[in-house]
Amino acid sequence: MIVHTTLTVSTRGKGLYPFTRQVEAWIGKQQIREGLLTAFLQHTSCSLVIQENADPDVTLDLRDFFERLVPEETKGYRHTTEGADDMTSHIRAALTQSSLSIPLVAGRLALGTWQGLYVFEHRSHPHQRNILLQLIGE
Amino acid sequence: MIVHTTLTVSTRGKGLYPFTRQVEAWIGKQQIREGLLTAFLQHTSCSLVIQENADPDVTLDLRDFFERLVPEETKGYRHTTEGADDMTSHIRAALTQSSLSIPLVAGRLALGTWQGLYVFEHRSHPHQRNILLQLIGE
Amino acid sequence: MIVHTTLTVSTRGKGLYPFTRQVEAWIGKQQIREGLLTAFLQHTSCSLVIQENADPDVTLDLRDFFERLVPEETKGYRHTTEGADDMTSHIRAALTQSSLSIPLVAGRLALGTWQGLYVFEHRSHPHQRNILLQLIGE
Repeated sequence: MIVHTTLTVSTRGKGLYPFTRQVEAWIGKQQIREGLLTAFLQHTSCSLVIQENADPDVTLDLRDFFERLVPEETKGYRHTTEGADDMTSHIRAALTQSSLSIPLVAGRLALGTWQGLYVFEHRSHPHQRNILLQLIGE
Repeated sequence: MIVHTTLTVSTRGKGLYPFTRQVEAWIGKQQIREGLLTAFLQHTSCSLVIQENADPDVTLDLRDFFERLVPEETKGYRHTTEGADDMTSHIRAALTQSSLSIPLVAGRLALGTWQGLYVFEHRSHPHQRNILLQLIGE
Repeated sequence: MIVHTTLTVSTRGKGLYPFTRQVEAWIGKQQIREGLLTAFLQHTSCSLVIQENADPDVTLDLRDFFERLVPEETKGYRHTTEGADDMTSHIRAALTQSSLSIPLVAGRLALGTWQGLYVFEHRSHPHQRNILLQLIGE
């Protein structure tokens, strides 16, 4: 059996936005107990990461590290017409993930205790980000 | 149903090489309408990324950023017998992806409007790169 | 058919720990010949990578590069209560993978000749790391 839905996450500037609960809520309504969840982000200027869900400081430190690693500056880049935060967003996305693959076991995502799913927004302005969720299983 | 094929992409030095069309052409010949595509790269000195398909400058800026992030120099590395661009290639591969997972919905890859699939070649000389495409679905 | 198991890898400080053989041994006992293997790591301070399995120097150079790329220093980070190597571990994990997706063809992982699977431990002290292996196929 294969089912899918689209989840929309509203972002308000750079940083990590959790969406584990929305995924779990959707999974809870499906008939599948064993399978594979794919979360696929349909954008190239934000990304997906699995990170610690306990201390919110982790998400702030991660955001700040990427700000240092991929400095926002138009010199050094060709692709600048969409703003100084656009090419850096594509690079930051390449350094992280466009999709997450998580096994479903006994009806639950097989996440570790401290793992949470996040949209990592790389752009400064608010965006609506679409994540296609697909569950394959039985 | 599970089907697979091997796609070969010829690279001519460092940079991004699109292969979305080849994947779509192969998918169009299959009987599967809903499922999961896995593109798996069978090499460790190149990688796969999803990036913007509109402005080719994006791919050049991404290539140049990795050149700065992982400088090509033999000092600082032990693994240098295969040339100055070999260990840097392994590192650049670790920072990106060996495989891409993309849901198939209604017979089409669920890519966003601006998303394209690319081989990111990290070595300087021409190579033939094999990508195993696998489609699981119904 | 969907099967799964949990593999535990013991780590003794920062570096890469191979686990390809354990995965192949488990696959050899399953009835599935064509399918998709997902290796999912249930932690946020280590990660998974596919790297060259021939020259062990590659894994040392990769470890050292990440030490330079994400310097272990408490200044500049908020999340420091778990030690200087904790926030850097989360960042290094975000830059690599939490899961690997590898097609199974004719009963074997479709790895390239030089590809091996590794746990990339980012913490200094010994840990037991759990990897959920799942095989979907027929």
